[in-house]
Amino acid sequence: MTAFDRLSNISNVLAPPASCSTVQSEDIPEKPYKATVVGSGNWGSTIAKVVAENCIERPQEFDQTVCMWVFEERIKGEKLTEIINTRHENVKYLPGILLPANVVAVPDIVEACKDADIIIFNIPHQFLGNILRQLKGKVNPNARAISCLKGLNVSREGCDVLADVISRELGINCGALSGANLAPEVAQCKWSETTVAYHTPADFRGKGKDIDKKVLKHLFHRPYFHVHVIDDVSGISLAGALKNVVAMAAGFVDGLGWGNNAKSAVMRLGLREMIHFAKLYFPECEERTFTEESAGVADLITTCFGGRNVRVGKYMAEHHVPAEDAEKVLLNGQSCQGIFTTKEVYEFLSQRDTIDEFPLFHVTYDIIYNGFPMEKLPERIERGDEKY
Amino acid sequence: MTAFDRLSNISNVLAPPASCSTVQSEDIPEKPYKATVVGSGNWGSTIAKVVAENCIERPQEFDQTVCMWVFEERIKGEKLTEIINTRHENVKYLPGILLPANVVAVPDIVEACKDADIIIFNIPHQFLGNILRQLKGKVNPNARAISCLKGLNVSREGCDVLADVISRELGINCGALSGANLAPEVAQCKWSETTVAYHTPADFRGKGKDIDKKVLKHLFHRPYFHVHVIDDVSGISLAGALKNVVAMAAGFVDGLGWGNNAKSAVMRLGLREMIHFAKLYFPECEERTFTEESAGVADLITTCFGGRNVRVGKYMAEHHVPAEDAEKVLLNGQSCQGIFTTKEVYEFLSQRDTIDEFPLFHVTYDIIYNGFPMEKLPERIERGDEKY
Repeated sequence: MTAFDRLSNISNVLAPPASCSTVQSEDIPEKPYKATVVGSGNWGSTIAKVVAENCIERPQEFDQTVCMWVFEERIKGEKLTEIINTRHENVKYLPGILLPANVVAVPDIVEACKDADIIIFNIPHQFLGNILRQLKGKVNPNARAISCLKGLNVSREGCDVLADVISRELGINCGALSGANLAPEVAQCKWSETTVAYHTPADFRGKGKDIDKKVLKHLFHRPYFHVHVIDDVSGISLAGALKNVVAMAAGFVDGLGWGNNAKSAVMRLGLREMIHFAKLYFPECEERTFTEESAGVADLITTCFGGRNVRVGKYMAEHHVPAEDAEKVLLNGQSCQGIFTTKEVYEFLSQRDTIDEFPLFHVTYDIIYNGFPMEKLPERIERGDEKY
Repeated sequence: MTAFDRLSNISNVLAPPASCSTVQSEDIPEKPYKATVVGSGNWGSTIAKVVAENCIERPQEFDQTVCMWVFEERIKGEKLTEIINTRHENVKYLPGILLPANVVAVPDIVEACKDADIIIFNIPHQFLGNILRQLKGKVNPNARAISCLKGLNVSREGCDVLADVISRELGINCGALSGANLAPEVAQCKWSETTVAYHTPADFRGKGKDIDKKVLKHLFHRPYFHVHVIDDVSGISLAGALKNVVAMAAGFVDGLGWGNNAKSAVMRLGLREMIHFAKLYFPECEERTFTEESAGVADLITTCFGGRNVRVGKYMAEHHVPAEDAEKVLLNGQSCQGIFTTKEVYEFLSQRDTIDEFPLFHVTYDIIYNGFPMEKLPERIERGDEKY
């Protein structure tokens, strides 16, 4: 039985959900939107689950099949895509969570995306270039995209948020999703919030024919996953990337046993530097995205108390090992974006001679890459803080 | 040997600290300022320790004796003041921490304050009225004050921050100190930050004759306790009071086992409501006090992860008991300000018909005082959040 046959069977046994009856005719598009998720790490698999649940509940608005591109691996001899499509579990990256049967794992990236109206990117930053090269010229030119990636693209020319990189490379409008979302908690349907940001593009084809903010709310909002849709794509993208640098520093404080006061001091200054970075280099960002949205202060908090980056920073402090070693020990092949983002941010700010305005980002770089003693973090922070 | 004799002895054996040599002549007042701390709970004792350390290091600027008013109790037959003055330890409220010998416990409130140039109030909110009645007309009219209290004074006429209540009742200018400061961590000299706020009064008597921002920095700043002095007395006072309401709600989430995403969602909305409250009723407050200062977002974080209020909220959720019972079990006779502040805030906002603009404050009140089921917190929050 193919995945598609299986899906049809399952659709028959699913009772129409309560919300079906309240669909308003204005929400029904000419043709249901088809969503594809590119990526199947713990966050990619979780977002595929969220989206697939909504697609089942809104059959007139969304296509019932949600393709999920999976980087093919063999797990004890079996293909990961086959495991997902038969057992409905990503045993490697999201074990113990049942995925809806309409999530269909596809190993070919072009195949996974070719008919999609909405492509949701959710892969580690370092794989993006290769993925975009494969997709270039192969996606539906009317498609729209959402980036769940955390990171920045720094080059000699400047610094881009990844939504803009996707937009430019594929020629399709791209928004972003970011929030206080530790993947395992969302996967278990524990209540959380998130922020989706989307600019309606100049070539918007009209209601019922094209993705808009309301469609995105319907695609991502769940009773356990409260979505707020705003305009500020750069703001939530920057917040999502830069908070990982702060979380590395918060991890050092954890590992040193300095307590909650010290940790919140680091987070306070980190939030200020995130906002300062945005104001300097992305003047279109709104400060309130950082201070009021789930993608801002709330994501900073949850990331500094429970994410991968804080765990890596803590392990570095406790075991006196380099970041890459801590990453290998702790993350089961997944990546710690903060290590990479810290370097990108440092290089970008150094080129522009503004690194001194970012004492926390600077000392975090020096600790990870130059062996600066983390015990001296407070004095570096205090000196710098007075410059504002 | 009296406490004062003992102090003289100790002064002789203390080597002049390094910072003495760098005292600038402009910092030397006509007569050293004498500081008194009113209160000796764990935070009062800790602030007395901080201040006393600085007084020793700056003998030309500050009187060597720091009186600490102690509500007299008997501990196994011994007076608490005598224990403190002989063993230099507040065995009841800050056990295990050696206080500097120049902290002198005084059981008489008028005696403790009568010669003070700076009176630092650090008692539970509910004792303030009685203390001020005793002090009225008895303090040096040239004295200045700093309030470390967390709370608001709500009456039919309106809502006051406690610094303003102290100012009005005693006729002396009063600033505030508030920050991400769990007392046990500061007492152990773990690194943290704080915010001091002080308006220079219209009757300022001039440099060297009166307290100003620089004197306050010298009095409170330590290598492990970084002080930032600003103007916004109302802002840091409100933040210090209202964050305790948020911490109660964060404790419920902890006790329910909902995870970090849910907790940061509560804190995000809490921060918004704190700022909204300030803007509505204290328009002189600055928003950045809440988003940039230690007394704002950082104190919110540390309080929601380690303070008394979050522990009480968590215990309520885990054991299905009323707030007062949880307070009795957990706090060894100290008070959980959040229980009281939640009620004050609710009554104030209800009288003004604005409670609907504060869904988190409202639901927290209903959970504590009306038995509202805490499991339904997310729906109450979501509904309200859309009103902004």
